[in-house]
Amino acid sequence: MRDVAIIGVSQTKFGELWDTSFRDMITEAGLKAIQDSGIKGADVDAMYVGNMSAGLFVEQEHIASLIADQAGLNPLPCTRVEAACASGGLALRSGIMAVASGYHDIVISAGVEKMTDVVDPSPIVSTASDQEWEAQQGINFPSLYAMIARRHMYEYGTTREQLAMFSVVNHKNGARNPLAQFGMEITVDQVLNSSMVADPLRLLDCSPITDGAAAAILCPAEDAHKYTDSPVYVKASTQASGTIALHERKDITTIDSTVHAARKAYKMAGLTPKDIDAVEVHDCFSINGLLAIEDLGFVEKGKAGSFVEDGMTEIDAQIPVNPSGGLKSRGHPLGATGIAQAAEIVWQLRGEAGKRQVKDIEVGMTHNIGGTGGTAAVHILSN
Amino acid sequence: MRDVAIIGVSQTKFGELWDTSFRDMITEAGLKAIQDSGIKGADVDAMYVGNMSAGLFVEQEHIASLIADQAGLNPLPCTRVEAACASGGLALRSGIMAVASGYHDIVISAGVEKMTDVVDPSPIVSTASDQEWEAQQGINFPSLYAMIARRHMYEYGTTREQLAMFSVVNHKNGARNPLAQFGMEITVDQVLNSSMVADPLRLLDCSPITDGAAAAILCPAEDAHKYTDSPVYVKASTQASGTIALHERKDITTIDSTVHAARKAYKMAGLTPKDIDAVEVHDCFSINGLLAIEDLGFVEKGKAGSFVEDGMTEIDAQIPVNPSGGLKSRGHPLGATGIAQAAEIVWQLRGEAGKRQVKDIEVGMTHNIGGTGGTAAVHILSN
Repeated sequence: MRDVAIIGVSQTKFGELWDTSFRDMITEAGLKAIQDSGIKGADVDAMYVGNMSAGLFVEQEHIASLIADQAGLNPLPCTRVEAACASGGLALRSGIMAVASGYHDIVISAGVEKMTDVVDPSPIVSTASDQEWEAQQGINFPSLYAMIARRHMYEYGTTREQLAMFSVVNHKNGARNPLAQFGMEITVDQVLNSSMVADPLRLLDCSPITDGAAAAILCPAEDAHKYTDSPVYVKASTQASGTIALHERKDITTIDSTVHAARKAYKMAGLTPKDIDAVEVHDCFSINGLLAIEDLGFVEKGKAGSFVEDGMTEIDAQIPVNPSGGLKSRGHPLGATGIAQAAEIVWQLRGEAGKRQVKDIEVGMTHNIGGTGGTAAVHILSN
Repeated sequence: MRDVAIIGVSQTKFGELWDTSFRDMITEAGLKAIQDSGIKGADVDAMYVGNMSAGLFVEQEHIASLIADQAGLNPLPCTRVEAACASGGLALRSGIMAVASGYHDIVISAGVEKMTDVVDPSPIVSTASDQEWEAQQGINFPSLYAMIARRHMYEYGTTREQLAMFSVVNHKNGARNPLAQFGMEITVDQVLNSSMVADPLRLLDCSPITDGAAAAILCPAEDAHKYTDSPVYVKASTQASGTIALHERKDITTIDSTVHAARKAYKMAGLTPKDIDAVEVHDCFSINGLLAIEDLGFVEKGKAGSFVEDGMTEIDAQIPVNPSGGLKSRGHPLGATGIAQAAEIVWQLRGEAGKRQVKDIEVGMTHNIGGTGGTAAVHILSN
């Protein structure tokens, strides 16, 4: 198995990109990543693209072919991978395996979602849940995560204010990220007074509907210095599945797939949670940010609320969480999120994160999940 | 790079499976493949599943998680890959790379499509074409392939009867395949008198709308004999992209992606077209069967019509094409087709193909394309 390096990354501005089409968005991300990497377009060997539902959002399947065409990559092998909101993480992992296997040398792993071309994206997002047991019964993602939040509050005494603090810290970081969709600071009071979405979750607990794309360029670790002075190395790339429907779980306050993927990732990298200097977690809702901090092993189960309330996840604190602003502030274009997380960690490791730079960072982690945890992908990256 | 073997395969009955759900169909295929392979379910390390559009056909994305759950595979990494009708071929290739890389040892590569739960599958199938340049302008796949057929007839003198003969040979084989959707023989006259779909293509030139699933179990070649006495080895696994829209091509009578993928496959395997003892080609329409025979190098460009008319593609002739019955007779559940093709070649290589067995077969090939050739996947398998 060959070691793999990331030699270039990119992210488009995230937001409601009315004037940019699906195909233009992903092409922009790909070209920027190529420019960032020091390779030429002709050096690319293969592409993997994470996308949850272009079929439903823009009536287009076969998107890897479309993108290859648009980006002038023909006849290279181009493959779409999908695992709902974890599609980007899996595109990254698929690219890593393609390089590790020796099948390909220079690979683009990208992600894209165009969510604002439909009147109501909610039923589309719901196709990430178990249709027969959940979506068709009228329960959508805010409701599913609301149940998780209520149970976490009941089991562990997590407070409404602690949930709000997760969003507040995200926005504090996102206000320093020029590519974020909602780059303004917010207060706990603003979260607590925002519209109710699904009790106890309010508008400012929820990640937004977002258009955007991101890309990363991978190559064998031994070749990385040919292209860049600041390669970032893949120390672990893992993935796990969990029950897609909530009702099957023994404990809905733990995301089993995160626990499994994290355990494997630490083992693969020979590291522990204490070795991680910054982490991008999948906070599609504030409660999921808290679960991630627990399930990735940064605090004991049930302690994430007070940990966040105490400021321990801020950029200069014990474990900087979501220096990018996270899904809440940076935005959450479903298939692009996993790649955008990796881009943020790469920028952090290269010391290029500007006003949101984490000091003395040597190892970073990304955590990307699909649905309520039917899929989880974890990556550990280092200088 | 580790060599990879296929140690088990399966296919459900293909057809209008009203009484079988999406999740039951793929689970059946997976379990049958496991039984065929000699492994236990607990030995499986990861799964890849090819599926074109569960989002539009059954309102369910995140299907790899759903299937993992249904099949009791949690917490294993399970990933959907999509490239329209080539999704199965890419799921096979992704599984091969996962084993080759050393990331996983025993992998299920599967494919599934449930197409009959919607009133009109045609607009869904059209999402495999370029929506903005093709589908939204009212041109669908029969029309696209009709233009290709007309041009092939004009350029090379291919006749209406020769196109019909491709379907006739397919059905002759499919009549010997108990898993085929349309397992009856047909005549040239029947093809020529069937309803017009898109001039010159008639109903019996077109592959049907099909429900079905198929699966294959992969492992490192060096371990294969632990599980089975009759492993089949992957000699080549390649993939290429071509323009997704027809209007961009210099020559619409050649599928560039097939040419590129085939060229790489022969090189990877150290073989030539003369070494192939049977091939499963992607005949979504009869014309595409003819193109495949040419673009895979079995005959010169333009000669496939007379080659088929002369009976050279029958089971006991120069190059047996589609011993399974092909997409036309076996059926074409989009994401399952690429895996079903591999299952057929494995059965042929193991001498288990019953009345449709190709004699003295040592090397077989599969050819799976998406759309009108935006993606092509080619595999060469041998004893």
